[in-house]
Amino acid sequence: MPKKVNHEQRRNKIAEAAWRVILENGMEGATVRKIAEKAGLSLGALRYYFSNQEDLILYSMRLVKERASERIERIIHRDGSPKQKMLDVLLEIVPTNKQTRAEMEVWFTFVSYARYHPHLLEEEGDGILAAIQLMFEYMETNGLLRPGVDRQLEIERLYAMVDGLALHAMLEPERLTEKQVEKVIASQLEVICE
Amino acid sequence: MPKKVNHEQRRNKIAEAAWRVILENGMEGATVRKIAEKAGLSLGALRYYFSNQEDLILYSMRLVKERASERIERIIHRDGSPKQKMLDVLLEIVPTNKQTRAEMEVWFTFVSYARYHPHLLEEEGDGILAAIQLMFEYMETNGLLRPGVDRQLEIERLYAMVDGLALHAMLEPERLTEKQVEKVIASQLEVICE
Repeated sequence: MPKKVNHEQRRNKIAEAAWRVILENGMEGATVRKIAEKAGLSLGALRYYFSNQEDLILYSMRLVKERASERIERIIHRDGSPKQKMLDVLLEIVPTNKQTRAEMEVWFTFVSYARYHPHLLEEEGDGILAAIQLMFEYMETNGLLRPGVDRQLEIERLYAMVDGLALHAMLEPERLTEKQVEKVIASQLEVICE
Repeated sequence: MPKKVNHEQRRNKIAEAAWRVILENGMEGATVRKIAEKAGLSLGALRYYFSNQEDLILYSMRLVKERASERIERIIHRDGSPKQKMLDVLLEIVPTNKQTRAEMEVWFTFVSYARYHPHLLEEEGDGILAAIQLMFEYMETNGLLRPGVDRQLEIERLYAMVDGLALHAMLEPERLTEKQVEKVIASQLEVICE
């Protein structure tokens, strides 16, 4: 029987190799050759899955988002109070462990690179603002929003805070501990939620 | 009489040319040759002021910080209530006009580049956390801090919010208006100040 290769699995393995190469060399150093080497594939084999570097980079970036989305989905569907779940979702966005910090670094490197390669920006951003807007709709529907809260203002404030924390947690992991991140986010949820 | 050339002025002109080249080409495209061309100088003349690309880039980055510091100094020394001044200082950190947005872009590009060229990171960061810490000391000394405020938490929260807003104002200038930025920062000062 011929070996059955799961194509998606193989593409994801290559994308993960691309992450590692990006982390080591920056986006400019992430050549197809280096990524193939890291993935343990020949250049030809890699080209079977991705015909050019751009496809590969875009796929790798989508995978960062997909992985984060999957983790957030799991949080939403597990047991717990709505407030705890919201806290956990926001904590998922701020990188507080090695793996999520690496994902954030890859994403950050991609965003800075894409500013000078705007054709890569077909993508719709990181989806964090959309997630926070959904969260506010959920709070409103479930009567969790504190009365008198200026919704537009609080969305913008939470969005800025979460992205600022994410940036600081990535750039200064020694200074900003997971505990502090949690304390800041929890205090902001107190402002918004009943 | 021989023409007197102000060396600092000339160095600053070259640094400003470097900003423009970085904005157009990213850090990787900011060659000494391109910067000399943009500054209207020969390569030899440029080398008189900066012996290598690294010196030039570091000087250019210091100038971004210096310019921002000068503007903040001017705000601190003009008339007005302490609270209004604090708001204006924080609004100076978040880029809400073309010039400060350009400076922020140059800074952002530099930070992302320096992550893969760590010898450039001799610099002590952007100084925003230090500025916010000073602001809290000032508030405490002058009895402006709301009683019962968790100082460490509020420093971290304001720092995250300001940097998050700065990032969003740079990346999404159409979505995030100056008015909205001001509203978010003012609402946070209400939390902290009497």
